Amino acid sequence: MPKTDIARRVHNHTWKLDPIIRSLLDTDFYKILMLQMIWGLYPKVEATFSLINRTKRVRLADEIDIDQLRAQLDYARGLRFSKKEMIWLAGNSFYGSKQIFEPGFLNWLENFRLPEYRLEKRDGQFELEFYGLWMETSMWEIPALAIINELRSRAAMKRYGPFTLDVLYARAKAKMWEKVERLQKLPDLKISDFGTRRRHSFLWQRWCVEALKEGIGENFTGTSNVKLAMDNDLEALGTNAHELPMVLAALATTESSLKAAPYQVLQDWESYYGGNLKIVLPDAFGTAAFLRDAPDWVADWTGFRPDSAPAIAGGERIIEWWRQHGRDPREKLLIFSDGLDVDMIEAAYLHFDGKVRMAFGWGTNLTNDFEGCAPDHNPGLDPISIVIKVSKANGRPAVKLSDNPAKATGDPSEIDRYIRIFGNLDRAEHPVKV
Amino acid sequence: MPKTDIARRVHNHTWKLDPIIRSLLDTDFYKILMLQMIWGLYPKVEATFSLINRTKRVRLADEIDIDQLRAQLDYARGLRFSKKEMIWLAGNSFYGSKQIFEPGFLNWLENFRLPEYRLEKRDGQFELEFYGLWMETSMWEIPALAIINELRSRAAMKRYGPFTLDVLYARAKAKMWEKVERLQKLPDLKISDFGTRRRHSFLWQRWCVEALKEGIGENFTGTSNVKLAMDNDLEALGTNAHELPMVLAALATTESSLKAAPYQVLQDWESYYGGNLKIVLPDAFGTAAFLRDAPDWVADWTGFRPDSAPAIAGGERIIEWWRQHGRDPREKLLIFSDGLDVDMIEAAYLHFDGKVRMAFGWGTNLTNDFEGCAPDHNPGLDPISIVIKVSKANGRPAVKLSDNPAKATGDPSEIDRYIRIFGNLDRAEHPVKV
Repeated sequence: MPKTDIARRVHNHTWKLDPIIRSLLDTDFYKILMLQMIWGLYPKVEATFSLINRTKRVRLADEIDIDQLRAQLDYARGLRFSKKEMIWLAGNSFYGSKQIFEPGFLNWLENFRLPEYRLEKRDGQFELEFYGLWMETSMWEIPALAIINELRSRAAMKRYGPFTLDVLYARAKAKMWEKVERLQKLPDLKISDFGTRRRHSFLWQRWCVEALKEGIGENFTGTSNVKLAMDNDLEALGTNAHELPMVLAALATTESSLKAAPYQVLQDWESYYGGNLKIVLPDAFGTAAFLRDAPDWVADWTGFRPDSAPAIAGGERIIEWWRQHGRDPREKLLIFSDGLDVDMIEAAYLHFDGKVRMAFGWGTNLTNDFEGCAPDHNPGLDPISIVIKVSKANGRPAVKLSDNPAKATGDPSEIDRYIRIFGNLDRAEHPVKV
Repeated sequence: MPKTDIARRVHNHTWKLDPIIRSLLDTDFYKILMLQMIWGLYPKVEATFSLINRTKRVRLADEIDIDQLRAQLDYARGLRFSKKEMIWLAGNSFYGSKQIFEPGFLNWLENFRLPEYRLEKRDGQFELEFYGLWMETSMWEIPALAIINELRSRAAMKRYGPFTLDVLYARAKAKMWEKVERLQKLPDLKISDFGTRRRHSFLWQRWCVEALKEGIGENFTGTSNVKLAMDNDLEALGTNAHELPMVLAALATTESSLKAAPYQVLQDWESYYGGNLKIVLPDAFGTAAFLRDAPDWVADWTGFRPDSAPAIAGGERIIEWWRQHGRDPREKLLIFSDGLDVDMIEAAYLHFDGKVRMAFGWGTNLTNDFEGCAPDHNPGLDPISIVIKVSKANGRPAVKLSDNPAKATGDPSEIDRYIRIFGNLDRAEHPVKV
């Protein structure tokens, strides 16, 4: 039997590209849920998404070769949903429901391709924009972020030989397993992988997902990554994102329709999804403003995902609001997903145990934690805070205020206008690590 | 390109045996050095080697299947030195000298095979004996120990799935690399691998050797494992073992020839080897007795390997003896090889730095340290103290006193007789971990 597969060896040293995104399902599930709604209700809206590097000190365009980035983006543009993937989307149950995707949407999705982009270098950073119909540009967010993050990891590890890489990943695995062992001590934990966008690499995310599946069994409730969910027979998880209220707010032509936008989103959503998919993301223009102005029916939704306030304070505020509205928090669900690490998961778990149903969406600290794993100090392996946010809708500027001003996006004068309208209550700056 | 090599897959699930010893060079270098001397000077002496499990609580025959053990021993008996191996032994330099092996010896070695053995189960332990000519039986020590230790590791890991094994080895690698990083802080360290006999497995020993080569560069002076030395272009290291004084003492028919045996060994050795190979192993019948009765010329030898006394105390005793004999210890070499871990290496290094040349032969704690690496408490992965010692020479009982009575071997009445002759000076019991 040959020791070396000659064909494979030749392939290995002649290949042009090691594609990062190899499937359109290698994205977050919420993008597909939102996509159906956008396709159904806002098919003619145009939306531009823009890359924002909040970690200014990292000069992305110095670390990553622009031609490689272009090659990876172009490769992703060549992808279509495969037959098997379409069948799985059509035939699988999501959140306990069959056929959550309409036949018309699936027909349209079959021919979906990622749209054009504009990429330039400026002052050591990339200007990267996706423009066109919202129902096309929206789908770039996750693959583009995953591509940039993985290209950055690859660049950071370029100087390492095979042995160093072996030790690096051995340490990362050992480190990850320490976390798994800590999570094993939380008997009723519900946690899932939300780490696609900021992952170190696809293969490493896959390993982390397998580690959670092996290590905490049923307490690992699934992954936001649709491809990993399909491949590993896990639940695909996720609901909706800030782009919905951001676009609807940008389209609003009056102050009252702007103030109504966050609730319009919920009504739109309800026309498509029910049950555990009815999760409110309250912080697009400040959670306090959202709760203050919310109609009572919002308290009938299944849960909230406080995404930019500290977990315990943010959760308590929502529990208090449920109580004011006469709802029993023990029947409600809080989903924590903002910058979690094991310390925060443990603290929130212990704090809220018995008070409310809760679930954790674990992101960057799950899929991109290589601190202390490299043989030398290698800041290129530290995760950074990059996002791809909707910046314009039908030519009008889009804004996110967030509970944390450090996470606000949009033109400063527009931000000021939104603050005048929604107020600035309880918004407080916290450092954004990732 | 096929994803699965069908032939390999079929091979994988039909193979009969995963051989542990695949080359007669997969042994310690000192066995081959001693073998040439035995072949030259004692070709007709018969010697029996016996397995001794000093870790009584471990019932080896319950952990290891006797048929598998037999299959591995039989496989090793089928091995011959390959052409490439013979050429390397003949053509390589060892300790800076070319052609340290005589053509006659090499001719004989070409046809060498491991001799018969006797294997039985008794009270949960194995009775394993190698009998025949000393120049044949001597060669069983290392492969037989390596086989038993690796079969024990395999049995301990049988219940683990692929993911658990992945984490186990990731942790072991991370742990090993912590040690490497500590050793990197000792600028003039000379350390080598002496871990063949107690290794977790061949592949793991190879990884550890590669880790040291990668991690500490020139400070890693080589390995006792001849095959790993050849494959990795490292120095093959090692000098001589207790079997030499033990056999010569067993053959002695008078009290004076018995007392002279340890020095006879040195004269025999000198007729074959010089330079850095002239390392005294003083503790077979107690170091104090050895030093007390040693002729002055022993102080001309290059160095000592104190093998059963605590490193610092044992080293100091020999330095003192060199001083008494008017030799400058700074020109002498101490080789530490008894149960070393990084703490002990650091302590001895700092203690002796500038006082004497020193080198470390790192064994079990290098190649078989999986403490804390398994997901559960798995005592089957803790190394145990098994040895294969010469028990008879030409039918007469062989004895080792050692500086540590816990490491003494031989018939109790014979041990008493040796103690009457050599004395019991400075012998002190220390727990033997490995």
